[in-house]
Amino acid sequence: AETSDGFVHIDSDDATWILTSAIFIFTMQSGFSLLESGQVSMKNEVNIIFKNAVDVLFGGLTYWIVGYGMGFGSQPGSNSIVGVGFYFLDASERDMGFLFSSFFFQLAFATTSATIVSGAMAERATLEAYVVFSLMSAIIYALPSRWLWYKGGWLKQLGALDIAGSAVVHILGGTNGLVATLLMGPRIGVFKPGTKEPKMGYPTNALLGMFMLWWGWLGFNCGSTYGITGGKWKLSSRAAAATLLASMGGGTVGIVYSWLMRNGKIEVRYTLDGVLGSLVSISALCSLARPWESLLIGAVGGFLAILGGELIRRLRIDDPVGVVTVHVVGGVWGMLAVGIFLRPDRVAGLTNHAGLIYGGGWYILGVQTLACVAIIAWAVVTSFLTFKVIDLTIGLRISTVAEIIGADVCEHSINGTYYTAEGVIRTQDGRT
Amino acid sequence: AETSDGFVHIDSDDATWILTSAIFIFTMQSGFSLLESGQVSMKNEVNIIFKNAVDVLFGGLTYWIVGYGMGFGSQPGSNSIVGVGFYFLDASERDMGFLFSSFFFQLAFATTSATIVSGAMAERATLEAYVVFSLMSAIIYALPSRWLWYKGGWLKQLGALDIAGSAVVHILGGTNGLVATLLMGPRIGVFKPGTKEPKMGYPTNALLGMFMLWWGWLGFNCGSTYGITGGKWKLSSRAAAATLLASMGGGTVGIVYSWLMRNGKIEVRYTLDGVLGSLVSISALCSLARPWESLLIGAVGGFLAILGGELIRRLRIDDPVGVVTVHVVGGVWGMLAVGIFLRPDRVAGLTNHAGLIYGGGWYILGVQTLACVAIIAWAVVTSFLTFKVIDLTIGLRISTVAEIIGADVCEHSINGTYYTAEGVIRTQDGRT
Amino acid sequence: AETSDGFVHIDSDDATWILTSAIFIFTMQSGFSLLESGQVSMKNEVNIIFKNAVDVLFGGLTYWIVGYGMGFGSQPGSNSIVGVGFYFLDASERDMGFLFSSFFFQLAFATTSATIVSGAMAERATLEAYVVFSLMSAIIYALPSRWLWYKGGWLKQLGALDIAGSAVVHILGGTNGLVATLLMGPRIGVFKPGTKEPKMGYPTNALLGMFMLWWGWLGFNCGSTYGITGGKWKLSSRAAAATLLASMGGGTVGIVYSWLMRNGKIEVRYTLDGVLGSLVSISALCSLARPWESLLIGAVGGFLAILGGELIRRLRIDDPVGVVTVHVVGGVWGMLAVGIFLRPDRVAGLTNHAGLIYGGGWYILGVQTLACVAIIAWAVVTSFLTFKVIDLTIGLRISTVAEIIGADVCEHSINGTYYTAEGVIRTQDGRT
Repeated sequence: AETSDGFVHIDSDDATWILTSAIFIFTMQSGFSLLESGQVSMKNEVNIIFKNAVDVLFGGLTYWIVGYGMGFGSQPGSNSIVGVGFYFLDASERDMGFLFSSFFFQLAFATTSATIVSGAMAERATLEAYVVFSLMSAIIYALPSRWLWYKGGWLKQLGALDIAGSAVVHILGGTNGLVATLLMGPRIGVFKPGTKEPKMGYPTNALLGMFMLWWGWLGFNCGSTYGITGGKWKLSSRAAAATLLASMGGGTVGIVYSWLMRNGKIEVRYTLDGVLGSLVSISALCSLARPWESLLIGAVGGFLAILGGELIRRLRIDDPVGVVTVHVVGGVWGMLAVGIFLRPDRVAGLTNHAGLIYGGGWYILGVQTLACVAIIAWAVVTSFLTFKVIDLTIGLRISTVAEIIGADVCEHSINGTYYTAEGVIRTQDGRT
Repeated sequence: AETSDGFVHIDSDDATWILTSAIFIFTMQSGFSLLESGQVSMKNEVNIIFKNAVDVLFGGLTYWIVGYGMGFGSQPGSNSIVGVGFYFLDASERDMGFLFSSFFFQLAFATTSATIVSGAMAERATLEAYVVFSLMSAIIYALPSRWLWYKGGWLKQLGALDIAGSAVVHILGGTNGLVATLLMGPRIGVFKPGTKEPKMGYPTNALLGMFMLWWGWLGFNCGSTYGITGGKWKLSSRAAAATLLASMGGGTVGIVYSWLMRNGKIEVRYTLDGVLGSLVSISALCSLARPWESLLIGAVGGFLAILGGELIRRLRIDDPVGVVTVHVVGGVWGMLAVGIFLRPDRVAGLTNHAGLIYGGGWYILGVQTLACVAIIAWAVVTSFLTFKVIDLTIGLRISTVAEIIGADVCEHSINGTYYTAEGVIRTQDGRT
Repeated sequence: AETSDGFVHIDSDDATWILTSAIFIFTMQSGFSLLESGQVSMKNEVNIIFKNAVDVLFGGLTYWIVGYGMGFGSQPGSNSIVGVGFYFLDASERDMGFLFSSFFFQLAFATTSATIVSGAMAERATLEAYVVFSLMSAIIYALPSRWLWYKGGWLKQLGALDIAGSAVVHILGGTNGLVATLLMGPRIGVFKPGTKEPKMGYPTNALLGMFMLWWGWLGFNCGSTYGITGGKWKLSSRAAAATLLASMGGGTVGIVYSWLMRNGKIEVRYTLDGVLGSLVSISALCSLARPWESLLIGAVGGFLAILGGELIRRLRIDDPVGVVTVHVVGGVWGMLAVGIFLRPDRVAGLTNHAGLIYGGGWYILGVQTLACVAIIAWAVVTSFLTFKVIDLTIGLRISTVAEIIGADVCEHSINGTYYTAEGVIRTQDGRT
């Protein structure tokens, strides 16, 4: 329960669960690294992993300096849109148990949201541009996290629910990525007539990354109860079952879709989109979703993510690792699914509302739609301004030569693996 | 303590431990992916990882629909062999804390058991056949889990003990794998005179996979107390020490064996078999085994797994990633070790029996042998029928051309990594 | 609180936290494997991972037999320098909760300390020599762990503080590594005029390893409260924030340093040194450091680690994976930082002392310096003797031919990956 000073009262058991969950969430950075580095061409493997580190390093700094306070501050001047206080977060011995574990947990969410963007900008953004964006990304994240998760947030007060971040993390991150890819345009040669689609550099790693995200996601969804006392452990248990069932829905859809549409071939990308799209979409309702609802939400989420991927390629939007389709499409569906499947929570009191099929009418569905629109609008405006300023000052895109040679050589002086001692550049076809 | 309605009463602390342990167990899917993909030839790396995903996706579905209920259901019609109820598992708010965390934990076990089989079928089974088997595998798993883990299971009532799955997970999975490899026969060229033994595609990954399984196994063995209250935390602590000591026994035996028998070379396979064989064998007694017993059980388990591997190659049974020897041989020894080293448990009341060397006579050794025989027989019959039906309908084995070219190209349209843009197929010798 | 018999009284919640943290720490072995195998040349990838396994297998055995007792034994004959008892550790049902979880946790620390050394000896030490060293390393570790962590340890009694191992784990391991590399000399061709610096074999894996260590480190720093009861959970929460903030300091310094000094290129090694150096340096004060102090400690620690790396290369000391600079330099700074930033702990009573800037004068800084000197001296003497005896008996270094060909072929009979079926040896430039 929250008190008037904005603190949630937790005890040692709650804090331990928050910390454990957050550590699992941080392992998702390793998962994203594998997922993204496996999908880009080999000449950019190292560069894309670097960007995952930048999210935590630079994004984390801003989040500590102002982000957490803008999200959860309650000092004079705070309102339902933005918070004041907690800058350069420190805490007294009395409050530090809650404040530091909450900061740590939120930081894991914030850096995950930032990481999504690196995929959309893969293979053509400069590292400097990405560093600047990372510094901003923690601020872009802070406000939606308040709207939906702070007790006085305006969307939360309306009854909107996003338990583990379908909107706050995924719609936000994916929309930022969409803006970035639209501003930057496609990679050289992509969507040109007569050119083949770019190949995944190392699909084995992409699948391993998917696995690591899958288990790390349990930290998101089981940990978002913010503890285990007072019945919250029951919600965590339900979230675990819901998360797995959703992934079964999305993953099987991905495999069956590929089998039907690709002549019996099971392509890696459809399984990635199916599994990850389903995980994104179950996050909003995770600890309140019944198993069969979870399966359905996941199956639909995975299916929509796959269709979104087909559409986005047809629209000639170059999204190298499938960020937009998984996170935006999956996230919007996940938020709407709350409006359909929500039931009042008598275990820990998360909500008193009901969704469409449980007699609550259209209200929650409307509020959830509003939340999606608000977060997409916020993401579009803030990330457009950020990327535009970067573009006009230090530039967003690496040089044509660097793009062809690859960022690993040009930005990181990698010369050991795929390039000979003499500097002769090899092709990305195979490891020669 | 279980009540008359079949529920184990757990509280928030117990549930958190079950969830945490289960998340660690799920990370073993990443470990298996690395272990298996590292051992197969490079042309099948992606395919084998896919099969790990299929285990969770399709196997998980069946487990949710009927598997958990067949294992732990207690509605009218349930008996000591098979349960009734819990189909399409859902739970009331009162029961969901236990039911969902228990389902999640058991699901982690069930999918691990299924994953073992993919190794034995590597490099020659179609993905379609594997999907069908996965759907069945959750049912095949459900019954032995009841026999040994449900309060009214017939083997449990006899006093048989398998704390963390030496039999339920490993003997079962390994036997299913043995049946599969016998039915399918060896890969093309393997065991042919004049042909060299197939090479591990990427031993670095195989060892990394072993590491990930090692730590994930702690989730199995420490989590199988099903909680921490009422002294159960003491058993978890002992299980942690036992697991590590067993691996030290098996791993050092593997290294020394290779050093002695291979002219001072430490081959990867002997270390894999030694470490993993020891982990399989300590699982049955993990939280009741004294440290020196654990070391001994692990050393013998690792040694037998290695000898089993030598034997199976001499018998010309093609088991590409050493599944049978590690899981069946290690598992049977682990079960028998319970009969030798068991002592009554006065901490949490797991058993009142004693084994051979602690004055309990031959009874438990006999019961453990019976459990092994029953589970092997069950696995042989059910998996033989399953694979035979698959073989006679959609077929088990990929075409000869596909086997030579590799499943990554033929089943997954991978064309980016080891194959040129022109489709020229390269050899598996090295990455060219 | 510790009782007169040397036991810390913990309950089920504490034990669970210790176990969970220790499992996270063990995942660092996977991280080290990736970090080290990614940095060595490809011909030694498998060999270096093997050495991580050897640390746990052989080092673990010695730690069980005598190490834990020398560290934490309290039987007659025990003193402030070395303990007596607990050999071949076993425990009664009354004590096993604490003893086994504590052993498991300490074992995770001991094997991490040992693992550091493998990096310094990379690409030229025989596996046999490393096995012998591993057997000794648990003993070398045991004494400093007593000095700083056992209630009656002489440095602890003086007021020295090393919460999560800056000295006990990192200075010790790094110094052992320095002694090893000085005794062995550089790899063939390294530092020769006209020769190029050796290349990282697979920087992608090195970065992935850094990520895995990053999250695993949270097990070190959050778990070193030895529980969550009695306010200890508040210290764990603070340690989580401190660890992340320190890494932000060190990581951003690493990136900015490389950008400034390397013409805008962000080289992998500077990020590795920055992040890992900062994590080493925050360990000593982790749960007592304020956020801004953590950031500063991490930034300085990362910077010093980077400068140390530049210096050590100028001194022509061949430290293939940057062990000395990260662990010794980072560790010494971390210990000294305690002397500067320490405040009395009113939450769990870890210390009554204050450091330089909090009015405690120079005392703690002096004691921390003494701890560094004592541990470095201990490490130099014991590891020098160990390596010297190994060198004079079975030899430390592989043959010149083996060093050129690589240990993977020569010690592990790897012939599948980077070498053709005909045994033609390829170069390490690229994967051909």
